[in-house]
Amino acid sequence: VQVAFLLYDGFTALDVTGPLDVLGRLAGAEPVFVAERAGAIRNESRTMAIVADRALSEVPAPDVVVVPGGFGTRLLLEHGPLLSWLAAVHETTTWTTAVCTGSLLLAAAGLLEGTPATTHWLAREQLASLGAQVVNERVVRQGRIVTAAGVSAGIDMALRLVQLMQGDEAAQAIQLAIEYDPEPPFDSGAPEKAPRAIVDAVTTAVRAREAELVASGSA
Amino acid sequence: VQVAFLLYDGFTALDVTGPLDVLGRLAGAEPVFVAERAGAIRNESRTMAIVADRALSEVPAPDVVVVPGGFGTRLLLEHGPLLSWLAAVHETTTWTTAVCTGSLLLAAAGLLEGTPATTHWLAREQLASLGAQVVNERVVRQGRIVTAAGVSAGIDMALRLVQLMQGDEAAQAIQLAIEYDPEPPFDSGAPEKAPRAIVDAVTTAVRAREAELVASGSA
Repeated sequence: VQVAFLLYDGFTALDVTGPLDVLGRLAGAEPVFVAERAGAIRNESRTMAIVADRALSEVPAPDVVVVPGGFGTRLLLEHGPLLSWLAAVHETTTWTTAVCTGSLLLAAAGLLEGTPATTHWLAREQLASLGAQVVNERVVRQGRIVTAAGVSAGIDMALRLVQLMQGDEAAQAIQLAIEYDPEPPFDSGAPEKAPRAIVDAVTTAVRAREAELVASGSA
Repeated sequence: VQVAFLLYDGFTALDVTGPLDVLGRLAGAEPVFVAERAGAIRNESRTMAIVADRALSEVPAPDVVVVPGGFGTRLLLEHGPLLSWLAAVHETTTWTTAVCTGSLLLAAAGLLEGTPATTHWLAREQLASLGAQVVNERVVRQGRIVTAAGVSAGIDMALRLVQLMQGDEAAQAIQLAIEYDPEPPFDSGAPEKAPRAIVDAVTTAVRAREAELVASGSA
């Protein structure tokens, strides 16, 4: 089971490693990190880099694709090589998945037209504008496309995938192995639950960052 | 606020990126990835590599240290350069932290003698044998040392740290930004909750992996 984790300039690290440390524990899993060109790829804050061991052309037929989100997605919505690769590999994947704003790339590749899907809460309108039918749930499955809400939701998505692929016991074992018994310090992990002032502050900060990105043209 | 994330051969990716995507969003945070030598460092399954941008000697006085766990820790309990660095930087850190079996390294460096601390549920006995006072909680703070249970617990630990460093609102904002509103598919994330057969299967698999590591001498 080859699981391709897509990297691009400006990805979010947790979006990709949450699923890695779940799906990588599947019996028979062969994770591979892939980017337009092989090499070290920087995250959205430029503070760390994950190595893409393969170029897109070297991974033509993965069984599972995981597309992480990150501010960098905003600059890739017309990126020919990446979107063409997503559309091409989707023809033969068992599961095509995205975390957070990774769904914007699936949509830009033409894979979510009229399809129920989710994304980071601050990207719901943009995902809808790209043709998806946005559903306000943490993990959304439609056929063999599975999308997750923001960042940390990739862990829940990956456990759901394990359950779909190898059953309840496999998912329970991996959940236990990564000791996923969450104790968030607050009940502020969703915009419907967080205090209004916090929602406004995060919205303002993210919109400012997006504007800056688009203006500078680089993640 | 310089936050040093320690890498070593055989780390667990989620242990380090969970805290990164929380602490990296702190106002004024300057994350830096550090290893004995700079360069690409492979995780415990050899499936991905994160780049250590700096060598230990280049990061002599971080404000915060985050030590991830991973199978590789089992081979580092007498590793001079790494343990000396941990002991040295701890002299001046504001917070010295570990996720999962990262606590074994803090203990091996002499920092947890008689100190309340936690670790991955399968490493509790080993942590106790290294002198710590093992506490069965998800996040344990003792003075300026903070330890977390297995893998995913690093997210909870990092949010707690943000709360300690910059207050409730900063932590709530970051929790919302990473949409941390967990929905695990099962209630099997702790050995006290998972079915007995699942606990036994994970224990057997981990013990086999540990034995293999020690026999081969490399992560």
